[in-house]
Parts: sequence; C-alpha cells; structure tokens
Amino acid sequence: MLGGMQDWELRVSGLLDHAARSDPAREIVTHWADGARTRTTWADLRRDALRVVQALRRLDIYPEDRVATLAMNHSRHLASWFGITGAGCVLHTINPRLFDDQLEYIVNHARDRVLIYDVAFHPIVERMRRRWPTIEHYVCFDDGRYAVTFADWIAVEDGDAMWDMNDERAPCMLCYTSGTTGDPKGVLYSHRSNVLHTLAMIQPACLAIEPRSCVLPVVPMFHANNWGLPWACAATGAKLVYSQVNEPVVLCDLMEAENVTHVGGVPTVWFAMFEHIDRTGAAMPGFKLALSGGSAVPVAVVERLMRAGVRVVQAWGMTETSPIATITYEPPGWDEMTFEQQVACKSRQGRAVYGSEVRTVGLSGAEGAADRDGATSGKLQVRGPWTIRRYFEAEEDAVGPDNWFDTGDVASISASGEVRLTDRTKDLIKSGGEWISSVELENAAVGHPEVLEAAAIGIAHPRWDERPVLVVVRRPGASVSAETLRAFLAGRVAKWWLPDAIEFVAELPHTGTGKISKKDLRAQFRDYRLPD
Amino acid sequence: MLGGMQDWELRVSGLLDHAARSDPAREIVTHWADGARTRTTWADLRRDALRVVQALRRLDIYPEDRVATLAMNHSRHLASWFGITGAGCVLHTINPRLFDDQLEYIVNHARDRVLIYDVAFHPIVERMRRRWPTIEHYVCFDDGRYAVTFADWIAVEDGDAMWDMNDERAPCMLCYTSGTTGDPKGVLYSHRSNVLHTLAMIQPACLAIEPRSCVLPVVPMFHANNWGLPWACAATGAKLVYSQVNEPVVLCDLMEAENVTHVGGVPTVWFAMFEHIDRTGAAMPGFKLALSGGSAVPVAVVERLMRAGVRVVQAWGMTETSPIATITYEPPGWDEMTFEQQVACKSRQGRAVYGSEVRTVGLSGAEGAADRDGATSGKLQVRGPWTIRRYFEAEEDAVGPDNWFDTGDVASISASGEVRLTDRTKDLIKSGGEWISSVELENAAVGHPEVLEAAAIGIAHPRWDERPVLVVVRRPGASVSAETLRAFLAGRVAKWWLPDAIEFVAELPHTGTGKISKKDLRAQFRDYRLPD
Repeated sequence: MLGGMQDWELRVSGLLDHAARSDPAREIVTHWADGARTRTTWADLRRDALRVVQALRRLDIYPEDRVATLAMNHSRHLASWFGITGAGCVLHTINPRLFDDQLEYIVNHARDRVLIYDVAFHPIVERMRRRWPTIEHYVCFDDGRYAVTFADWIAVEDGDAMWDMNDERAPCMLCYTSGTTGDPKGVLYSHRSNVLHTLAMIQPACLAIEPRSCVLPVVPMFHANNWGLPWACAATGAKLVYSQVNEPVVLCDLMEAENVTHVGGVPTVWFAMFEHIDRTGAAMPGFKLALSGGSAVPVAVVERLMRAGVRVVQAWGMTETSPIATITYEPPGWDEMTFEQQVACKSRQGRAVYGSEVRTVGLSGAEGAADRDGATSGKLQVRGPWTIRRYFEAEEDAVGPDNWFDTGDVASISASGEVRLTDRTKDLIKSGGEWISSVELENAAVGHPEVLEAAAIGIAHPRWDERPVLVVVRRPGASVSAETLRAFLAGRVAKWWLPDAIEFVAELPHTGTGKISKKDLRAQFRDYRLPD
Repeated sequence: MLGGMQDWELRVSGLLDHAARSDPAREIVTHWADGARTRTTWADLRRDALRVVQALRRLDIYPEDRVATLAMNHSRHLASWFGITGAGCVLHTINPRLFDDQLEYIVNHARDRVLIYDVAFHPIVERMRRRWPTIEHYVCFDDGRYAVTFADWIAVEDGDAMWDMNDERAPCMLCYTSGTTGDPKGVLYSHRSNVLHTLAMIQPACLAIEPRSCVLPVVPMFHANNWGLPWACAATGAKLVYSQVNEPVVLCDLMEAENVTHVGGVPTVWFAMFEHIDRTGAAMPGFKLALSGGSAVPVAVVERLMRAGVRVVQAWGMTETSPIATITYEPPGWDEMTFEQQVACKSRQGRAVYGSEVRTVGLSGAEGAADRDGATSGKLQVRGPWTIRRYFEAEEDAVGPDNWFDTGDVASISASGEVRLTDRTKDLIKSGGEWISSVELENAAVGHPEVLEAAAIGIAHPRWDERPVLVVVRRPGASVSAETLRAFLAGRVAKWWLPDAIEFVAELPHTGTGKISKKDLRAQFRDYRLPD
C-alpha cells in the first residue's frame, strides 16, 4: 500500500520553475571582468536554460552525457547549470586551477562531450585541446573568437521545450575532488541529493534564505556545488548576485549597490574585505549573514564580523557532502551566552542538521562510535542522503558498514552534537605517544597580527617520534621573530605542543583548490634537521 | 545510471532520531487537564515511541494496519504518533467533535484495529464501542479504569527495537475531512509527503523553526496533521509545549513560563487570548511568531499581533494539502512597505513555497489557467508532493489532469503569486450574473466591534437570481442594529453587495471542526422570504 499523496520527482529544474513562477522579475545580477554589470531575471534565466536544453538536444547530447563548464561566476554560467541538468545531462564543473595532468585526467575520466568556458581560460583550452579527445563541441561564454558564443549558441532556440523528467536519483552534477593523494575522484550528485540538500540549507539554522534574501556567492561555481547556493536561491526565488572577479572593492560595491543580505566565501574573502576596509576607510557593507567555509576561520575574524552585526555561519563539509555536513547554528541557550561564548561557538564546526549525521570512531580503528563527551578525539564520519556512497565509476563504495563515510578529519563531538575539528588524520603530529593538532597550532599562530599564513608539520625525532615545526609567512612589512612568536604561542597551546623550530618562508605551497599543501611542504622539509 | 549519493528513505522516524541525537535533553512539556505539568525529552520520547513499536508488535499489529487515537494534545499522544508510524502502521487521528454517524463511518472505513484515547472521551468510546467492531484493543492515555493505561501498556517493553523501514511512499497517517457534503474522506499522508512538508515548513519564509525555537501548537493534534508541527519540531530538535486544555489563562501562562517562541492556532485562539488580556490586564506573552490558519483572521487581529512585535504567518491550506499550501511570507520589498501595507499583506493568503503550486481556472469550468493579474477570480487549484492524489480506498483519483487538485475555494492570484481567497465555490452568491463573495461580506461585518460572528448566504430572488442575507451573532451585551451595521458595511463593500436583509441570531450552526456550517444555515433559511 502506498500513501495517497502525489508523486513528484525531486529534480533541480523544479527549483527553477518555482523561482520563475513565484517571482518572475526577481533579478540575477552579474559583475563581469570588464566592469560591466548585467541583469537578468528568474523568468528569463529559465527561458535561457530551456534554450540550452534545446541546443544540447540539437547536438545529439543525451541525458546522462557529461557537459563541462570551465568558468567563473556569472549568470550565463548559471543558465548553463540549469540547462545542462534540465536536459538530464550531467554538469561537470571544472576547476581551472587544477594542474594540466589533473585537467587531462578528469575530462577524460568524465568523458565530457561539450565544454562551455570563459575566454579568460582560453589558454587552458588551447593547451589542453589535444589531450581532451572526448570533447566534441566548444562553446565560449563571453567571446566569439575561438568558438561559438553561448548567446549565439542558444539564440536560435525558442525555449519552448520540456525538462527531462527522469528519476530523481539520476545524476545531476559531477565535481572532482583535487585529491592530495592519487588521482582526482568524481562526486556524482543526484537531483534528489541536491534538492534535499537545498531544503536543508535554506532553513533558519543553516542559511535562512527566504524570498527577500539577496545572495552573493563569492565561492567559485566550480567549488563543491557552489556550496549549493544557486539551488537554494532558486528554491526560494531569492535574488542572486555573481561577480566574475573577486577584488574586494568590487565585492564591497556590489554588496552595497545590490542590497546583498548573504555572502558566502572562504576565510580569505573576509581577510581581503577587512584589509580593503582598513586601508581605504570604506564602510563595512551592510550584509546580514556571512557563510564561511573551505577552512577554519580565525576567531578574530568571527568576532569582527559579529561586532559588525553580521550573523556568522561557519559550515564544515566537503565535496563528498554536497557540501554541508555541519553548521554553526545558534543552539538552545544562545541568548544566555556571553558574546565571547557566542564567538567561540561560531568558531567551531557546529552541528549536523536533519539529513546529515556525524559520529567519531577510534583513531586506531577500534570498532564503534567514540564517546560524545566533547573531549575524545576520533575519526570523523558522516552519512545521510546528500553524503557520497560511491565515486563516479569507482569499483566499490566509498563508505563502510551502515553508510559511514570517513572524512579524513579528526574531531570530538559533544553530548549536544557539537563538532570540534582537531586535525586532518594524516596531518596529526605524533609526539611521545600523544597527538599534537597541527590545525590548532596554525590557528594560534595566525592569531598573531604579523603572521599571514602558518603551517605545522611533524619532523622525525629520535626520542619523541615526531616534533612540530612551524613554517610561517609574515605579513608584508612585518618582522616578527621566532622568539616573539614562540612566546606568543606559549600562552595559547600546551607547553609540549610548542614547535621545536619556527621557520620563515616567502610563501607556502598550495593545492589546486587553494589549500596549503602539507604533502608538498613535507617534501620541501624532507631533509630538515631539528635544532638540538 | 544513478547518482553516487546515499539512498535513505525519508521516514518520519528519522526526524525523531535526529531530535534525540542532536539535543537529547531538549524538552516536551505537557499541561494536563488536572493542572499538572510534566516534562519529557526527545531522547525519552524516542524510547517511549520504540516501546510503542514493541507493544504493537506484541499485539500482532502489522505495518499498514491502522491504529487510531482519540485525544487532546499531550506528550503521550505525541509518543504514540512516533510509535505508530515508526512501527510502519498508519496513525489515524480521530476528531472527537465529529457526530456519532461520522465516528462510526470513519473507524469502520479505516478498519482501525487499536484505539488509544483520553479518558475525557470515554463517553464516546462507551457509546460507540458496539458500532466499532474492527477495534480489537483499547488503550487509555491517562486512566486505568476502563482499559490498560498507555504507561502500563509500554512499561513491559524495553525500547530496544528498530523502526520499520519500508518505502518512503508507504502510508504514515490518515486524517478524515469532516466533509460538508457526503461521507468523510480519508487523506492518507505518506512518510515522504510528511518529511518534505516538514522541510518546507521549517524554512524562514514559513515558520522559521530552529533548534532554539519553542513551539506551542494550540491547534488540536487531530486537526490536519497537527499542522505538521510535531514533525517540524523533531526535524529541528525544537522544544515542544502541549496543553490538554485550551483556556487562555493556561496558554498565556505556558507561553511565559516555557519561553514559547511560536504559537499555532485558529483565529479563535487569538480572540480568546486578547479577551483574556483585556479583561485581566495580563501582559501580552512574549512569543515571536503566530501561525494562524483554519479560517481567515480579521485584519484587526493581525494588526494587534504585529503591533505587539509578533511575526504573523497566516497559512492557507486544508487536510488534503498536509496542510500548508500557501503562507504569508515577507516578499521582496517588505521593508519598504508601510505598516498598513504589511498588515494587509499578512491578512491575505500569501504565496506558495517550493513544493506547492497554485493556479486558478475559470469559474465556469473553462480550460486552462486564469490570468495572474491579482483581479480575475477563479477556482483555486493546488498540486505538489504533499497534495493529495487519491482519498483512502477511493476508486479514482481526486485530481484532474496534471495532478491539479480543486480546493473548492475561489481566489485571485497576482503576478508575484499572491493568493487572495474570495470564497468557497459553493458559497459564492450569484446576483445579476455577477458573483458576490460571502467571505468578503462576512469579513467586513466582523470588523464591526459589536459583531461576534457573521455568515452571508444567497437567497433566491426572482429578478437577480440570488441576493445576500447576512446572519449575525452580536457580542454579549451588544445591541447593534441592522441599520447601523448596513451603514457600516456601505463604506466597505460594493453597493450592490449590500445584503438585502440582516438577521440577528443567538448562534450559528458549526461543523465538527468548528467552521460555520453554511449547509445547515441554508437549511434553516430554506423558507426565508426576502423583504420587498
């Protein structure tokens, strides 16, 4: 026996239908690299997306075929998202910052048949074209010199088409993780996983997106599902603001001019914004909510945002979790907390909402869940309807028994479900049989006003197994010494955690997605000798 | 090809699992009819629900079997909701205000095998027992004189059980509509429809329920899925407050004592609350959100709530829509509206959120959707994943082509999707080839301070087909005359809408769910003659 309610497949095209129906004139604004600003509406974007559906069908691109984009954030890119997924094809968002070998690998692994790209990335296309034999058609979002423009490609269509209405569990989108080890791996979102993730993330405990919201995703569209923000805006009919460039002066101006309420970005976005404000004396933009993710945001940044009246929502997750796994919602008792307690709460990793479940298990691989006592560290695992089961074309599932996915992070969980990340499993430093968290050392170090970036790695030690070395990039013009920094750290971490050495470098190695590459840093320090 | 994400059935037991996991100590408070207040927690409620699962299995009650409740609002009733649905059985919530023939019909139509009831309704059980042959087991929530008590029934179980994990489209709950014509009809919610409705209703545009919320549903648990509030509270781990009785003094005290943030009730709840405040000089309780539904709330009440700083959310829907079909969310431009405009916006029926779709079609049955011009009235239709497809055990679907369900209401829809109800289809008064809205006449009439209730019906007229008669109940001690009331209406409705007669009565007939029964009123006025 089935229930008596209606059957509707949860497809992302239904989100766009809602936006176009509920507020057809609500805008999507784009700031282009050349300084131009253009506006479209949900109704017009829907028509353009349906034209993309027709243009793909004209090229004999079928449902489940992969169609790639290589582009920054703008409304045409957004129209292509809804058009590609609306045709039942799989949207593959390529990160232009990947290395050539990775770019070659993922396009061939995905067997992308079409690539739509920004002309700014034409050098990549030019360089890679011969290594991308599966791509049959190139379309350029913003220039007609090398390929048909997106506008011309869809101009011959009338938008009088129907969305593909396959099963809600059919694939929708493919995002590769840049992978610090081995080849990149493809995470294959389904329509259902994206719609459920959308409904979860608009709730007040998460992003509190509503029809009158105006959202500026600074996070690139090629990063982890654009954090789900385009789907969330469509689901509510919210206004959406995109910028092809990320200069703080442009972003701050957009926030003011477009009455942006929600901004989503990695910590660097907040650093750059405050640096711009401090340098120019510009006013703090009047947005209401800062979604921060990608890596932990320093307490000082959380505090400064909160003092400006901004609601800070730090999210923790990964491409494999769509990406939101936990979020720093305001728990019961929030109003009774001191400001300092609230800042501390917002500086941790938050809690899982319905649809995401977290647990920790013993670091040594012991069976069963670790205590939820807020102290015991363990391997952090996640499961739920928007958590990965199996990577694209993998031979076996990426999860253990009962669907638990191992995140590679180390964390503790409190009785009320609050997660505190302590480190990446492989970045923990083992000293005298105990674990030192490289993340906590680094967070303490970047709290010093003259430190721009810091990374802690373990160096082999005859007696202690490993001891930490801190590698630091000073801020421009700064001259902090190792002794001063060591004294600064002494009050902030356990004494036996203090690094045996502090080394200053001009820059740290980064991965294709902008994270510090511990793997490369360890390689650089392979022959390093600790001071006696 | 399927996406690579995890498969999880959307079952309401998963909502309870989340609540018990995310904040096990968060409370469910009950005020009992005898004045006692008890507290349980989400973790304990989950254990009790699992005991109910075991108790049902012990009685050889199987998945899909119907288990009925006949009870007011309290935590044991809530535990039975999660236990019955968690066992895979179908929860049938019986409205004790139905007439005996209806009570006989629905229990036999549902083939209920178990009934769990409040002792306050023992007279009904005593009276109906012989007419309810399908019921094999009686359990009493709060008294052991006539049947095993709920507490004893589950006390022998240990809660060490698993939820039934059938398909998410399996039935979850059965609510009968009292039906102004014909036999009551059963709406059969699925687990999926309830979970999707839950995710929609917690969003900021709807009820904005988050973990730190505290919700007091004054609406009875036997009314239309309790408006979805128990599921929404579980999905967020919010605190839940129930009262077995509805005296304003008790409700106001609960609101203050338990720091209630959200109150859900029919307009009568707000009338009674303000009457209590005005009479006793009590302070306005400090809740933040008033969810009003069931019937249109007068503008004056909306205004008074809003002046007290309460966010008013008026929802329109019906048992067949789970029940939320449209809701008065704050549209873009809300902050630029005057207070009067905001009050007017909140006094209409609002807009559909993602998952609910509305349209109007011609009153005369013409094909296709009517214009969304905010003026053209038409039959209001709804569809979506929590709208009914077919009544329980009906021979055919309750919907037309493309799943459109005809609500029986008449409305206009604006370009931005705002719905304004003008009447029930069958309550429209046809005069001189034009339609007069009985609802608008009644709303105008109850705007008069001396009018308690008013109902407009059409009386046959030789020239105009029908002409309106307004039937009015005066407030206690009031003495407003027909002439005065007619003059009051003259400035508020079109001249040709003015009733040909105004009749004062001691009371109006009501249906089992507390609505004015136009059917019975028309019967009373069958032989009425209009004045010349």
